[in-house]
Amino acid sequence: MSIADFQPLHSGSVPRFAGPSTFMRLPMATPEQVDIALIGVPFDSGTTNRPGARHGPREIRNQSSLVRRVHHVTGVSPFDQVRAGDCGDVVVNPLDLLGALDTISSFFAGVHRAGARPLVVGGDHLITLPVLRGITSEPVGLIHFDAHSDTYDEFFGNRYNHGTPFRRAVEEGLLDPKRMVQIGIRGAISDAENYDFARAAGIRIIFIEEFVERGIDAVMAEARSIVGGARTYVSFDIDALDPSFAPGTGTPEIGGFTTREAQAMVRALAGLNIIGADLVEVSPPFDPSGVTAMTGATLLFELLCVMAGSNAG
Amino acid sequence: MSIADFQPLHSGSVPRFAGPSTFMRLPMATPEQVDIALIGVPFDSGTTNRPGARHGPREIRNQSSLVRRVHHVTGVSPFDQVRAGDCGDVVVNPLDLLGALDTISSFFAGVHRAGARPLVVGGDHLITLPVLRGITSEPVGLIHFDAHSDTYDEFFGNRYNHGTPFRRAVEEGLLDPKRMVQIGIRGAISDAENYDFARAAGIRIIFIEEFVERGIDAVMAEARSIVGGARTYVSFDIDALDPSFAPGTGTPEIGGFTTREAQAMVRALAGLNIIGADLVEVSPPFDPSGVTAMTGATLLFELLCVMAGSNAG
Amino acid sequence: MSIADFQPLHSGSVPRFAGPSTFMRLPMATPEQVDIALIGVPFDSGTTNRPGARHGPREIRNQSSLVRRVHHVTGVSPFDQVRAGDCGDVVVNPLDLLGALDTISSFFAGVHRAGARPLVVGGDHLITLPVLRGITSEPVGLIHFDAHSDTYDEFFGNRYNHGTPFRRAVEEGLLDPKRMVQIGIRGAISDAENYDFARAAGIRIIFIEEFVERGIDAVMAEARSIVGGARTYVSFDIDALDPSFAPGTGTPEIGGFTTREAQAMVRALAGLNIIGADLVEVSPPFDPSGVTAMTGATLLFELLCVMAGSNAG
Amino acid sequence: MSIADFQPLHSGSVPRFAGPSTFMRLPMATPEQVDIALIGVPFDSGTTNRPGARHGPREIRNQSSLVRRVHHVTGVSPFDQVRAGDCGDVVVNPLDLLGALDTISSFFAGVHRAGARPLVVGGDHLITLPVLRGITSEPVGLIHFDAHSDTYDEFFGNRYNHGTPFRRAVEEGLLDPKRMVQIGIRGAISDAENYDFARAAGIRIIFIEEFVERGIDAVMAEARSIVGGARTYVSFDIDALDPSFAPGTGTPEIGGFTTREAQAMVRALAGLNIIGADLVEVSPPFDPSGVTAMTGATLLFELLCVMAGSNAG
Amino acid sequence: MSIADFQPLHSGSVPRFAGPSTFMRLPMATPEQVDIALIGVPFDSGTTNRPGARHGPREIRNQSSLVRRVHHVTGVSPFDQVRAGDCGDVVVNPLDLLGALDTISSFFAGVHRAGARPLVVGGDHLITLPVLRGITSEPVGLIHFDAHSDTYDEFFGNRYNHGTPFRRAVEEGLLDPKRMVQIGIRGAISDAENYDFARAAGIRIIFIEEFVERGIDAVMAEARSIVGGARTYVSFDIDALDPSFAPGTGTPEIGGFTTREAQAMVRALAGLNIIGADLVEVSPPFDPSGVTAMTGATLLFELLCVMAGSNAG
Amino acid sequence: MSIADFQPLHSGSVPRFAGPSTFMRLPMATPEQVDIALIGVPFDSGTTNRPGARHGPREIRNQSSLVRRVHHVTGVSPFDQVRAGDCGDVVVNPLDLLGALDTISSFFAGVHRAGARPLVVGGDHLITLPVLRGITSEPVGLIHFDAHSDTYDEFFGNRYNHGTPFRRAVEEGLLDPKRMVQIGIRGAISDAENYDFARAAGIRIIFIEEFVERGIDAVMAEARSIVGGARTYVSFDIDALDPSFAPGTGTPEIGGFTTREAQAMVRALAGLNIIGADLVEVSPPFDPSGVTAMTGATLLFELLCVMAGSNAG
Repeated sequence: MSIADFQPLHSGSVPRFAGPSTFMRLPMATPEQVDIALIGVPFDSGTTNRPGARHGPREIRNQSSLVRRVHHVTGVSPFDQVRAGDCGDVVVNPLDLLGALDTISSFFAGVHRAGARPLVVGGDHLITLPVLRGITSEPVGLIHFDAHSDTYDEFFGNRYNHGTPFRRAVEEGLLDPKRMVQIGIRGAISDAENYDFARAAGIRIIFIEEFVERGIDAVMAEARSIVGGARTYVSFDIDALDPSFAPGTGTPEIGGFTTREAQAMVRALAGLNIIGADLVEVSPPFDPSGVTAMTGATLLFELLCVMAGSNAG
Repeated sequence: MSIADFQPLHSGSVPRFAGPSTFMRLPMATPEQVDIALIGVPFDSGTTNRPGARHGPREIRNQSSLVRRVHHVTGVSPFDQVRAGDCGDVVVNPLDLLGALDTISSFFAGVHRAGARPLVVGGDHLITLPVLRGITSEPVGLIHFDAHSDTYDEFFGNRYNHGTPFRRAVEEGLLDPKRMVQIGIRGAISDAENYDFARAAGIRIIFIEEFVERGIDAVMAEARSIVGGARTYVSFDIDALDPSFAPGTGTPEIGGFTTREAQAMVRALAGLNIIGADLVEVSPPFDPSGVTAMTGATLLFELLCVMAGSNAG
Repeated sequence: MSIADFQPLHSGSVPRFAGPSTFMRLPMATPEQVDIALIGVPFDSGTTNRPGARHGPREIRNQSSLVRRVHHVTGVSPFDQVRAGDCGDVVVNPLDLLGALDTISSFFAGVHRAGARPLVVGGDHLITLPVLRGITSEPVGLIHFDAHSDTYDEFFGNRYNHGTPFRRAVEEGLLDPKRMVQIGIRGAISDAENYDFARAAGIRIIFIEEFVERGIDAVMAEARSIVGGARTYVSFDIDALDPSFAPGTGTPEIGGFTTREAQAMVRALAGLNIIGADLVEVSPPFDPSGVTAMTGATLLFELLCVMAGSNAG
Repeated sequence: MSIADFQPLHSGSVPRFAGPSTFMRLPMATPEQVDIALIGVPFDSGTTNRPGARHGPREIRNQSSLVRRVHHVTGVSPFDQVRAGDCGDVVVNPLDLLGALDTISSFFAGVHRAGARPLVVGGDHLITLPVLRGITSEPVGLIHFDAHSDTYDEFFGNRYNHGTPFRRAVEEGLLDPKRMVQIGIRGAISDAENYDFARAAGIRIIFIEEFVERGIDAVMAEARSIVGGARTYVSFDIDALDPSFAPGTGTPEIGGFTTREAQAMVRALAGLNIIGADLVEVSPPFDPSGVTAMTGATLLFELLCVMAGSNAG
Repeated sequence: MSIADFQPLHSGSVPRFAGPSTFMRLPMATPEQVDIALIGVPFDSGTTNRPGARHGPREIRNQSSLVRRVHHVTGVSPFDQVRAGDCGDVVVNPLDLLGALDTISSFFAGVHRAGARPLVVGGDHLITLPVLRGITSEPVGLIHFDAHSDTYDEFFGNRYNHGTPFRRAVEEGLLDPKRMVQIGIRGAISDAENYDFARAAGIRIIFIEEFVERGIDAVMAEARSIVGGARTYVSFDIDALDPSFAPGTGTPEIGGFTTREAQAMVRALAGLNIIGADLVEVSPPFDPSGVTAMTGATLLFELLCVMAGSNAG
Repeated sequence: MSIADFQPLHSGSVPRFAGPSTFMRLPMATPEQVDIALIGVPFDSGTTNRPGARHGPREIRNQSSLVRRVHHVTGVSPFDQVRAGDCGDVVVNPLDLLGALDTISSFFAGVHRAGARPLVVGGDHLITLPVLRGITSEPVGLIHFDAHSDTYDEFFGNRYNHGTPFRRAVEEGLLDPKRMVQIGIRGAISDAENYDFARAAGIRIIFIEEFVERGIDAVMAEARSIVGGARTYVSFDIDALDPSFAPGTGTPEIGGFTTREAQAMVRALAGLNIIGADLVEVSPPFDPSGVTAMTGATLLFELLCVMAGSNAG
């Protein structure tokens, strides 16, 4: 099947409130049919406080009908450059935390074998761990937008939850800590030792205060140089954004990114060797207006463009 | 394709928050493949006051994942009796009122030719007119649950809007007024002459006060005798329900049906010769909790059961 | 000015979302011009728990555009029987509780002198006291729909608040306790002695449990016989309704009236000698969907009809 | 400590919006100090669809400040009959389903040893299983109000979730199926065989349809005779109520109980030998208006009264 | 009548929650009586996706009671410089798109003949077209704040909708494309050719990215030089703002203006020859908190000040 | 009792949704036991427009469970530097404005005598007056973040309301106007003379426009120099923030601070001689998402840190 088979419904022909609710109004597809596979992982059993991210994929599909085809800065449509399709949701058991991780990693191993790059929609942040397990067997780089470092060792004695994925991924050899950068970190923490693991491992943490002081260009130039040209994964936790832009999430922290800043940072990833990306922690029960899911859907479009090479000026 | 091909996703295997959002978690289908075709008509340009019902099909699909397979009173599943599928939405132009009516009637003429009976999800109540145009060329009977008679002649000089469909359908010979019954009518009206057309034509209007006095059994026995065994259409306006049960609608009227009463009335349609049915006027922008769409989805299941013969004790 | 000058905007000519927002889309008027004066009292400084009823008049005006002209049971329009107009709001100081009571009573004394009967929109229930002060100098009868008896002696040492108006009114000789009936009372109370004053004074309290057991007809027949043919005031606290019908109020109590029951009870007041009425305690900040204000507006229409003689079968 | 030490804050002295937020404004206490221990179990990891009930205890505490001291039907205060206190929340790990069950059962074993009867606030319905494990070692009777039988064998291959607690409790010898009655059951089910276990075991299921037909008195008389005078547990799932009364729950089903009916049924438990009770499945993220938590708090008061002997006429 | 007759109600005398709900608490007026006529156009039948802007004028009136008299930067009140009044709503038929355009243009032709400059409150953006038809017969300049260029040729084959008004206005000779500037444009588009018409015609489009780079001063200096001293219209689509500031609109796009930026830009219009202005696309059904209407009301005040000459430092 | 006795519950041990709801999950305490006393003043009877701030303390307690222990910029925990505890709410009569002021000032006089510095949670802004009366008998300095100057002389003839506290405090000799600075002032005002009192007295008003132009560093340097090293009070009105960050307040004004700016400004208070601070005007009924209360709780943590010396880089 060709690119022509993977075009979104046109908002000038089929009203955006009509028709099936798929990611960006794309056709349903198998990973074998596409270059970039949009996949939902409706799982939030790794959440330590407010659950609800399991409902993220459905609402992001719903709100993504507000997104259109062509990036306004470049005038280029990612759908003219790659085949992208909605490959559905991973069917994941909310009652079995460790079993669910296996289900997810198996699913993404299949996506990887099919030759598609995944663009993943969470779910809570724990899902990044099994996605990485599925798509790489050696350490990759990471550009990570988040309010939280998510490198805790455990919560309530449990080592697998949405506060620990990046520590686990480093320990498991899925991420190369020297090629990891975390941007936007902020908020009161439980322990001053929280960042010790990250620092000892060589992970670069850019607090929001440093970001504000240095600006987007300097920070993203550094981020690009940290990951370099080798294989890199991008993880975007919606709580990286300020709660005024993204209230619908489980662990909001004030003082975060504006959407303008987020868009500029994602566009600055152009040309990197991106093997996959995710957008996580949109929690619809805390998002009555739908604005967080809408914002998530738009950032997903920016991520798709950068993976397809469509939004760099 | 057989009945086995048209089973909803099982809530004990695929979590209800996962997987594609279709009516009752059914597969997408063409009218040719099914006995009963669930179809959305996302159209509200016939609305005289508060719009939003165009978003009804999507939200009812979303909330219908709360519905399961087997009717609890009879222990029978409609999906074991008929092939039912989600046949998508009619692609309808919100900017061209009369053109949209033609699009809708053509679509349903196709459904009719394919041999499927439609179970329609609105949209505002004007859509009943083109659905009837599509599926019948001679007068049929009508059982109509509503707060409003919808037999006005015009609003703002316009003869085609959600306050007029049943008058137009009678005039066009699509409905037999002697075989029409309207149940639940109430609320202040613009003109005392409002009901004159209906009465002159022989339409039986059962105000909510009469319903309360006589009870469900007597009213539904009369309704059944009015339409008899000949071809009959069922139209359920969600504002027939009291706003406490269905706040998300454009023209709420207090003093309406409970859901218990509505379920009992729909079940009392068992055995009638139903050629199609609709559920209209769910307006998601006025339904922030989603309870109206959820209620609509459940009543849709009851309507499906009565069309399939699954919910009569 | 004649009745023709006091007709609501017609919903078939001027869309209900257009035009000025007045009570029932009526013209603004002075009390001198009308028979029944709709008046807002945006005051809630007598509230002991959750404030917000000061915003009631505005939202009830807003939602009252959903109400139309003619009562559906009788086919009669109150606007064909009496001159009714929107006489605006009393300008009342939220910072001076006792001063505000004087402002309100002076205003209603003026309405009374002008010869109009007031139909009042609160505001919290304390406003009934100054309304009565304004319109009567001798004890009148009372039919009172409420979850609470509002005959406490004081809260926090204060004798004038929304839990005490009927005790004060009896003490001040504005109400004749032998001609008072309270219907729908329920909910846990602070003191078992709460009802002692009422009982000692001879006020008839009909708890919701008695109402459920005896039914609307018996209860309203008793209520009518209690007040008899002499001058009577009607006070409807929206929290008489169950919170499922009227969530937007400061002191909700479960187990209350349905709107059907409320409508039937108000209609059963037909023919009484009603010198004024109020509908109080709609609190828009606790009513995000607007359904409580809409319900209040509809009950206001029923009250208007009973004052005009338009809704008795 | 005496009964005088366990009085709620008085709403006429301390405004209900002030002061600490505890269950019914009671003092914090240890189980040793009280006769009836109000305890929160903020756990929802047994939820198969929409999570959020973990936030139930906090919001029910919050809304319970609307509840007062004395039951209005009897004029009796439970706080004059028993010592009741807020014994806090069980500290339960959301990430370890089976471990959490052990934590909960240990906690309630301690309550039982201390001689207090628990009045439990969920959390999802799975918590009833470990509560029973903690307070009894032999089969007890059960009166169970719910939309769902919760006697499934498993979901997604998992045997411990909020659809299975009563099957597990029967299997473990904690409940005597011959002394079990489930009232209010309704809604489409996944399998017709769903109720086979219950029926084979001898559990009495009263569907909502039977309830409507026979009425409260007959149903509750039967329920009382089923459990008899021996030790009995009461479990109230808030989704037994219709969603119009209790929208804030994970698995709403239309056609449920009114709050009036629920209050009457709980009061009809007077005189039974109740060893404990729970109220579960209030899910604040789906309850933006707080009305479900407020309703839950009020039913908790009715349950407390029946355990204390204060609300029987 | 003099300026003294057109003063808003004073918030220190009449509480802002009291009194009639008019634009900025001004008196109702005819266009003949005022210099600047505030007029609502409750029309959204030109909407291609999410309707609701028809309710804009009412909610903006409601929220405008939060606005006061004197601009804080200059200490000058526009009400001391011009006579401004609330001239009501255009009575417009939601069911007849082309007819409605005629009604609107006739109304504004009357305003123009009366000598008043209109300050218009939408309604969807299509209304700008008939407003221009009413107030000019030759091309004027335009300063246009928006996320969207609104220069599409058609949607669903329809040439008159809220995505096309500026193309139609240029074609009809109402706007001079060489004197047009659009500021804040962004968001994915349906076609790369979207902007071709605008560019070919000579319209200056300033994307949000250019705005961010160059800053308010440079952009507004250019905008002022583009329109020069000749007759100019100002159109402000609320979706020019970021959705965090204005969620209540039909087509939100992330990455938009802050309110600070918007205020600064409007103030920078001081001294231009403004013949009229509008503020459109506030959609109350998507604005549950009312913050968008409140923001719209405040920007309306800034527009009024610039038309009156009161907010330039 | 030592610092070890005043540690918040740890979010890695006790889930944040569990356990008692106190400020920052701290133990309840008496002022005698602590260095810094967190105290709620649930009072809003000084509100001139939209009430609701009386519910602020409870919701800020609730949302403060999202706050953790250690400031991320410094790695220092205030709870390791000072003893801080939740000292409950002042029991204040909503029905007696002047009496309530006396209750509040007496309470804080007690706190002052106990040797604790108060960190106060409102309530409306009028409460700052009695707090000052309680803790100082001579003029102190003030750093005041707000959209409004709150130096009006009266509203509706009343001199004690939330628009007047700072004028009264100057008049009463509680504040030294020469050591007062107000930052973020903006929004249309009732009278141009509004600021005359402030200017005459020597109060420094920094409008938001000046703030934007000069930047945080310059403004805060000036603010610090104005108050100098002598005793200073800090008052933070949540409406200083833009409504996109803090919608839940009674008198929102667009164009306000971001949370980033607010955090930076509070941190810039490090080292000042702060005798007490407050955070006021969070109004939960206007904050359905809870984001304003969450923001308030986080700023409260920043204020606590600055009082403890923990958040300066």
